[in-house]
Amino acid sequence: MMKSKVKEPTPTAIAVPKVALALVHYPIMDREKKVVATNITNFDIHDIARACTVYGVERYYLVHPIQEQQMFVDRVLDHWRVGQGAKFNPYRKTALEQVKPVKTLEEAMKDWGHPREKTLFIGTHARPVGGAREYSLAEIRERLKEPEMALFLIFGTGFGMTDEYMKSMDGVLESIRGAPPRDYRHLSVRSAVSIYLDRILGPW
Amino acid sequence: MMKSKVKEPTPTAIAVPKVALALVHYPIMDREKKVVATNITNFDIHDIARACTVYGVERYYLVHPIQEQQMFVDRVLDHWRVGQGAKFNPYRKTALEQVKPVKTLEEAMKDWGHPREKTLFIGTHARPVGGAREYSLAEIRERLKEPEMALFLIFGTGFGMTDEYMKSMDGVLESIRGAPPRDYRHLSVRSAVSIYLDRILGPW
Repeated sequence: MMKSKVKEPTPTAIAVPKVALALVHYPIMDREKKVVATNITNFDIHDIARACTVYGVERYYLVHPIQEQQMFVDRVLDHWRVGQGAKFNPYRKTALEQVKPVKTLEEAMKDWGHPREKTLFIGTHARPVGGAREYSLAEIRERLKEPEMALFLIFGTGFGMTDEYMKSMDGVLESIRGAPPRDYRHLSVRSAVSIYLDRILGPW
Repeated sequence: MMKSKVKEPTPTAIAVPKVALALVHYPIMDREKKVVATNITNFDIHDIARACTVYGVERYYLVHPIQEQQMFVDRVLDHWRVGQGAKFNPYRKTALEQVKPVKTLEEAMKDWGHPREKTLFIGTHARPVGGAREYSLAEIRERLKEPEMALFLIFGTGFGMTDEYMKSMDGVLESIRGAPPRDYRHLSVRSAVSIYLDRILGPW
């Protein structure tokens, strides 16, 4: 066989990044900046699970310290996974397969099982968070090209997670800005999750 | 004064495109492909109004032929615009200012008042629509740079608008594809609106 200067073809298929997502219900700020626990809502379970399934997110954790709230999630999941809902709408069953209620982010990370040192543990917020390292979306996309690097993306409810809580993460993502001149930034968390997943994992 | 070869500086500020949005509740397909009217939901009003406000959309129309359903929208709007809700959450009042219930798309276009010949009247769907002209997102963004060109973007509920209804529009937007290998495409309409607005109007 003739030797050739032509190099081996570079693999062009880009591996889909490994991503998990959490929706946090404590510690959350209310409109008066008091620290509260928010209620888990049915729409947050469904809409975010569906967006996660579209973008190939591996796990969606609903984080709440109170057992009754976790039991509410289990009742919803049972209905759609094995109850009447599974027959009524099989697409919904698929979307809810990766959903899991947990007490804390630590429990979620342990359940997911990806090594902490190979995970970007990143919060999101509508406004800059003082003292937290800010990541641009471009930077996150770049980091996810590193071998085995994964993303654990964390969203708040209510008026957002407390600054202290977010400062314990590796950093926070740049905010989604509103159109000029108003810069209105009050997206529902369901919309924010959808837009961030599209910007990080969408076919750009 | 000395004549110079230096040109006038080109204006760099890009005008924000003029956009209106409609959420259609009839004629809609149900899971068995029967044509139905769907109910207007509270979350569709709020989440989509908030996304519209973030991206500078001028009007958000809830399209339903039945008067009782329009009255439901009016009751929700009254609560947040002038009732208890306006005091409780002024951000929500801002988001709901541009929301309006209408009977048909024609009524919405008339209310908006932008000339039909300067409006791209575009539907959205999770799957390709046989017989409809498909627009890529890049093409829409390019067209919106034309002087006075505006976009009227139309979303369905349930399992989507009927093909006949969409064929009467100027075209349909390319679908949001799911991650390989599954290509799951069952986003909530709230998520789909958020992602499309970001792709068309976001700071890319």
